[in-house]
Amino acid sequence: MTTEIHIAHLRGLLGAKGVLVGKGELASYQTGARGNGGAALFVARPTTTEEASKVVSYCSRNGIHIIPQSGNTGLVSGSTLDLTGTQAVLSLDRLNKRFDLDRDNRSLHVDAGFRLSEINRRLESEGLFFPIDLGSDPCIGGMVSTNTGGSRFLRYGDVRRNTLGLRVVLADTDGTIIDLAGGLRKNNTGVDWKQVFIGTSGVFGVITECVINLERSPRQTATAYLVPTSGAQVMTLLSAVEDTFGNDLSTFEGISGNAFRRTLEHLPAMRNPFESGRIPNYVILLEVSWPSLRLDKEARVEALLEAALEAIWEHPDHPLADAFVGRPEEMWALRHALPEGVRSAGTLISFDLSFRRGVVMRFLGFMREELSRRFPGVEICDFGHVGDGGVHFNLVIPREDRRLADNAFVEALREWIIDTTMRDFGGSFSAEHGIGRKNQAVYDRFTPQKLKAKALALKMQTSPSGLGAVRFN
Amino acid sequence: MTTEIHIAHLRGLLGAKGVLVGKGELASYQTGARGNGGAALFVARPTTTEEASKVVSYCSRNGIHIIPQSGNTGLVSGSTLDLTGTQAVLSLDRLNKRFDLDRDNRSLHVDAGFRLSEINRRLESEGLFFPIDLGSDPCIGGMVSTNTGGSRFLRYGDVRRNTLGLRVVLADTDGTIIDLAGGLRKNNTGVDWKQVFIGTSGVFGVITECVINLERSPRQTATAYLVPTSGAQVMTLLSAVEDTFGNDLSTFEGISGNAFRRTLEHLPAMRNPFESGRIPNYVILLEVSWPSLRLDKEARVEALLEAALEAIWEHPDHPLADAFVGRPEEMWALRHALPEGVRSAGTLISFDLSFRRGVVMRFLGFMREELSRRFPGVEICDFGHVGDGGVHFNLVIPREDRRLADNAFVEALREWIIDTTMRDFGGSFSAEHGIGRKNQAVYDRFTPQKLKAKALALKMQTSPSGLGAVRFN
Repeated sequence: MTTEIHIAHLRGLLGAKGVLVGKGELASYQTGARGNGGAALFVARPTTTEEASKVVSYCSRNGIHIIPQSGNTGLVSGSTLDLTGTQAVLSLDRLNKRFDLDRDNRSLHVDAGFRLSEINRRLESEGLFFPIDLGSDPCIGGMVSTNTGGSRFLRYGDVRRNTLGLRVVLADTDGTIIDLAGGLRKNNTGVDWKQVFIGTSGVFGVITECVINLERSPRQTATAYLVPTSGAQVMTLLSAVEDTFGNDLSTFEGISGNAFRRTLEHLPAMRNPFESGRIPNYVILLEVSWPSLRLDKEARVEALLEAALEAIWEHPDHPLADAFVGRPEEMWALRHALPEGVRSAGTLISFDLSFRRGVVMRFLGFMREELSRRFPGVEICDFGHVGDGGVHFNLVIPREDRRLADNAFVEALREWIIDTTMRDFGGSFSAEHGIGRKNQAVYDRFTPQKLKAKALALKMQTSPSGLGAVRFN
Repeated sequence: MTTEIHIAHLRGLLGAKGVLVGKGELASYQTGARGNGGAALFVARPTTTEEASKVVSYCSRNGIHIIPQSGNTGLVSGSTLDLTGTQAVLSLDRLNKRFDLDRDNRSLHVDAGFRLSEINRRLESEGLFFPIDLGSDPCIGGMVSTNTGGSRFLRYGDVRRNTLGLRVVLADTDGTIIDLAGGLRKNNTGVDWKQVFIGTSGVFGVITECVINLERSPRQTATAYLVPTSGAQVMTLLSAVEDTFGNDLSTFEGISGNAFRRTLEHLPAMRNPFESGRIPNYVILLEVSWPSLRLDKEARVEALLEAALEAIWEHPDHPLADAFVGRPEEMWALRHALPEGVRSAGTLISFDLSFRRGVVMRFLGFMREELSRRFPGVEICDFGHVGDGGVHFNLVIPREDRRLADNAFVEALREWIIDTTMRDFGGSFSAEHGIGRKNQAVYDRFTPQKLKAKALALKMQTSPSGLGAVRFN
């Protein structure tokens, strides 16, 4: 059948605006967040789960491979097309009508095409928010299928923890709709099917509606920079602040001196907060936050944070070289500018790694020693969520470095980092970005054969037709 | 092959004490927590995952159906045998050697046969605990395969949220060991297989080792009883205390007047805490807890709780009829005595239901009206986790009531409660106890055919041999 017949049929289902085919119209859907991309047969834009089901059913019956696309902000090409021009995008960008707040349940039943920022903007007057803090602004459907973490994971967990329910369209000839959207916080009545669709890049089904947990917005927040006396003392600091603040500790982020310096260089409007002007080798951004204005003036959260830092100064292990409480807006602005600052410094080769918490600083210490020996001239500009074991391990290479033109060099570098992470430090090659096309080869290399076979069987049981950018086989 | 040959072979693997067959030895394994039970071919007691694998492989090759048994404390017969005498128990009671604490990661890699109380006793000196609060004392393997919740779910979540990793033995002819025990907090590299084994009653695999999240033990705790002016005002109270205490609110439990009264009657050593001596229709047990002694005397947690209750007295909706802060030990002793108190009152027909949070009190209100009309003489003695939507909906019938001998009466009562829960109130028939033999028929009746078929296919992919007390088909 020709493409024209497909388009005509799908326009009959979705209306003229529901299917895009023109070159200009397709551009933004064909290009991923990192500039890479592919070629689309067409873009289908359902406005409801039921329409999505009809699109998927039609494509399934006609052998058209579907790439579900949400905010298209992912960094691992989980929503980008291949180059064949035979794949179609199922975009969620019109699937953004339903927004049912259940105040008592502190939950929101929302169409998958809503942006994170829009969800939180609408919830602001309720004193509620969806507690996943990200630098980018994805849609909720993509967040679920990626299982994003973010900078407040330590307190609120990942998207998995905050997902109470889903509606999902399976890629079979019926476009079967699976309704798992009851919104219960407790329910143990068999397989918890929603877990299969969370964090698996939309390969097992298209997430079209989400029921998410909301949290009360904090009303008191205090932030501080902590400079550890050594990498090994970072865990002493984490332990001390967890001991003091428990679940009120909402952020414990690590920032390498290189990432800090590159960001200040790139954005001169940002102030160097260190009195000496010298940027330390490693800085911790700490946030403590409380839901209410429950304390009188003398016991506000800043004062308590000051007092806690005073106490840590007296710690017998002397973990602190420097520490000061500062304005949250300023400190978060710097934190959120890090990706841009690092990117500005050269060509970026980035990894989204995770480890057991105590292993992070050992890994970073090893890399600071060993990388320069094996790959001289490569700068480590890491930052990330050291409080939950995540590291955005960024390598920056000067743009004029000739080795960048050498695929074998870049591949050897990537492979050595991943192998060291997995084999020597028991880490993960994808903490919170998922697999995507970018990590397909690593998935293939490191996933035990038996688990691959089981994943493929699960795929055949859920969405046997072509769906998603990742192959689970 | 005769049973003797099986026993001899397994004793070769596990030693003499590793296989029990004598009538007296089998008794405790054959009887469930509610006195029901079945008949065992033998009990196999591996001491390691590798031994468990050998047992499972042998049974799988010889067509012996295995019932994994952990603490055997479950209330839905998830670990009890059938009556045929052809099933074997795989007990975890000797699988309790490994206890590897990772302080930095706040995690524990532990053999599945450890009791909850023993885990927390060993962690006490570290200031850490596994934050699932239960009245009973199960082993950790059973807790994972049941996904228990408990009285502090509101703050710490369920077992699923606190499970970082597992080792699992699959019931196939190899006794395949699946190693998912990396202990990472963030890892998005494909299907999160551990989710399949959590809360599914050991039907997809035998959980032999667990990596669990630990929390800091609270150092300041305050508890209060709150009496709402009406059922509808319970949500106003919950909202007000969440607003004030956020994640520091660790318990918001509902106790019906009947359950309260029956417990005081049964345990005369317990004091009636209400000045008037009259027990209200409904009481909320509230707990606020903090990790550290961070506040000076005037701002201790009791004082803040007092102040918060004062503020709620002034709430425009007048949600409070009575409220007072009391001794945590006393209030928790009553809370934990409720199951026994309720059981003492007559024959118990119990349900472990859950709803969206705002629906709980509507359901209870409906039942208080309607049950007495349809089933006169049946007393509702509910209590439970209203802060997360869970209700232990207990019906008490005087032991001398002749209708108890009438199976049809009891069945009609059970069916009406479950149907009303599921169809009219969007609830769940099992909040935190799992399916087990007890809920098999309800699972069969309410699970959509397509999901049943997918669960069965998943079962064939993981543990095709006979395993567990529940049939997922």
